[in-house]
Amino acid sequence: MNTAADIKTERRKLIAVAMELIERRGKLVSNADLAAETQSSRARIDAIFPGEGELFDAIIEDWFAPDVAIMEEVVASDLPIQRKFYEFFARRFRREQQRLRDDPDTFALYLELGEARMEDVRGYIDLADHYMSELVAQAQAEGHFAGLTIDAAMSLINQMVICYTSPRVLMMLGDRLTEKKLAGIIDTIFAGLSGEDGGARGVSELRLA
Amino acid sequence: MNTAADIKTERRKLIAVAMELIERRGKLVSNADLAAETQSSRARIDAIFPGEGELFDAIIEDWFAPDVAIMEEVVASDLPIQRKFYEFFARRFRREQQRLRDDPDTFALYLELGEARMEDVRGYIDLADHYMSELVAQAQAEGHFAGLTIDAAMSLINQMVICYTSPRVLMMLGDRLTEKKLAGIIDTIFAGLSGEDGGARGVSELRLA
Repeated sequence: MNTAADIKTERRKLIAVAMELIERRGKLVSNADLAAETQSSRARIDAIFPGEGELFDAIIEDWFAPDVAIMEEVVASDLPIQRKFYEFFARRFRREQQRLRDDPDTFALYLELGEARMEDVRGYIDLADHYMSELVAQAQAEGHFAGLTIDAAMSLINQMVICYTSPRVLMMLGDRLTEKKLAGIIDTIFAGLSGEDGGARGVSELRLA
Repeated sequence: MNTAADIKTERRKLIAVAMELIERRGKLVSNADLAAETQSSRARIDAIFPGEGELFDAIIEDWFAPDVAIMEEVVASDLPIQRKFYEFFARRFRREQQRLRDDPDTFALYLELGEARMEDVRGYIDLADHYMSELVAQAQAEGHFAGLTIDAAMSLINQMVICYTSPRVLMMLGDRLTEKKLAGIIDTIFAGLSGEDGGARGVSELRLA
């Protein structure tokens, strides 16, 4: 009889095999592929990954687990809020950039798989937004981002740092992205983001000289 | 005998036919395709678009012409510098967003064609950077973005507004992008961007509590 720990270990091994197989074939693999590759019975694989999409969900979970750990650690830390914001983005960016440099093809492949199954990835994006809303609330309690709702502040910040959070944009910009620039953006946000109308948009319709 | 004006008119008509054909077929068309479609001789088409890639270059030129006009007009205007920055991005964004809304498939198709021939599109990106460097120089002459080189300021600004300039990101974010948010980002940049170290990055290595 298998203990829960045995099943967990086997599950982890199978996920590793599946990822290796995906990288070799350049496309998603099924429970049948995984059974053939590991010379296991299909019933055995189905018992561990029952239901449509469970194998891919497990792979996504594995992919994002370090990001979740980073976010939890940063939010729970007692760094000054501005440092928290920076580390919240920088540590995940550093990890993604390294993955891209190590193996651009595999990076592109997972990006493609993820974009094709956005509904499975959505939960992790929502989780990142959840942690970020805690950081924004803390920043506002300390007087930053005055005059903005949490949602409005989050939306603007997410757009200003998208180069450092979107794997698609990371691929587009490559080495033009640096931690120093990310720090410059976070500093700009803390020095300048508020609900005050700074006049960029103007009050009247566009009228050029 | 054709006058230069006749040739220009014919060229414009052929570009329109080629774009219509590209949209219908979902892929790039050749001089031969264009000859067949317009029941012209291949020699006639080749005389108007001589050399490899000339037809596509002409299509790109047509695609970007309104953007170039917008940039020239904004840079030459006597709007306050903060308004110039906003209009520089907002007017092109508004046009792209409308194109995306009008016909998402065609938008995606041109994006794909452009990404596949980045070397042909590069000139327009460089031109946008050229105009932007003029705006940054003017802003700095008025005391903004202190302590940054023009290149450093441009790089940070380009990254903070990429949602509003990259057609790829525009497709990803859709209606989450608004002119009001763009104005909020430009206001944040003018209120907060400088070469001063605001402390986001910290002086020591990451050390969490």
